Amino acid sequence: MRLVLASGNPDKVREIKEILRDIEVLPLSSFVDEFEIEESGLTFRENAYIKVQKAFELTGLPSLADDTGLVVHGLHGMPGVFSSRFAGENAGYEANRRKLLEALRGMPLSARRAYFICVVAFMEKPGEVRFFEGKVEGFITKEPRGDGGFGYDPIFLYPPLGRTFAELSLREKNRVSHRYRALSRFREYLNESGLSR
Amino acid sequence: MRLVLASGNPDKVREIKEILRDIEVLPLSSFVDEFEIEESGLTFRENAYIKVQKAFELTGLPSLADDTGLVVHGLHGMPGVFSSRFAGENAGYEANRRKLLEALRGMPLSARRAYFICVVAFMEKPGEVRFFEGKVEGFITKEPRGDGGFGYDPIFLYPPLGRTFAELSLREKNRVSHRYRALSRFREYLNESGLSR
Repeated sequence: MRLVLASGNPDKVREIKEILRDIEVLPLSSFVDEFEIEESGLTFRENAYIKVQKAFELTGLPSLADDTGLVVHGLHGMPGVFSSRFAGENAGYEANRRKLLEALRGMPLSARRAYFICVVAFMEKPGEVRFFEGKVEGFITKEPRGDGGFGYDPIFLYPPLGRTFAELSLREKNRVSHRYRALSRFREYLNESGLSR
Repeated sequence: MRLVLASGNPDKVREIKEILRDIEVLPLSSFVDEFEIEESGLTFRENAYIKVQKAFELTGLPSLADDTGLVVHGLHGMPGVFSSRFAGENAGYEANRRKLLEALRGMPLSARRAYFICVVAFMEKPGEVRFFEGKVEGFITKEPRGDGGFGYDPIFLYPPLGRTFAELSLREKNRVSHRYRALSRFREYLNESGLSR
């Protein structure tokens, strides 16, 4: 099976290819030279929908999109859909992490409870979209730790392993992550519906 | 005691005046003919801060601001700080409610768990801001019910009374609401610090 992936983020593409190993995943950038997808939605589903719709429209092939974010209890769900631009449109991973740590300063431990959520949207035929969600719970640390992963990984503590996501190898992260969980559900769907062949 | 209230929403002003009955609350609009405060923050604290800072700057008097929103579990915290403009900048209460009900369609009951949060910011001296939070938990109904309240009140079920916030009188709502709870904490602070005299 071949799938078009509506993402321009190389970190995401790498993880998704590693998780969906036996499926041929073609980044949208291999079809079109430039594309701009405005992630203007206020929910993960809206954004995943916007992206998958665009990929399908541009290629006509079965398409996949992923919208991901970090939902922090003490910030009442933020940064959420703004995770990649919490500190501003082009602020980058480090500035986003800094803003998050700053916002949580002085708050009780319960405020640091958080989860990563990944919503995957799959479009096989025009207008038919299916969503698959994956979630992983943890805590926001006070300081970054580890060099792996990307985004908020260095400040996201995964309690069952006592390490941040940035302290896990790509392999390890891809066995427990929100993205892995969402894509596992997607793969189950492919198997059950016979689409994976 | 006299307080300037940084709000242009008459529904909010009415509730706050009712709750803080013995305090003289002066809406910012009674000092300046027109003011525009951009609620550009991504957290309730940021927005409350922006507003209280503006009121203090314009009047030099002890100022109060309130930022409020509905945090829905199945939408990972949304509409949150976008509660008043979930369906678009000038969409209004009804369109916002409709968008929320639509987004939750087909989701399990747990997705309908929600809470209202109110963050009150108080500035007495330049640069010194204190925050007070109030929260009330409930569920999003499938249909609006009741004519009272405003905003999301008709679809917010308050389980201890088995009614939506729009089915409560202003009096009843003001005994249990997020806004009441935040303002009670604020009043406690005033009493303890001797500022209420």
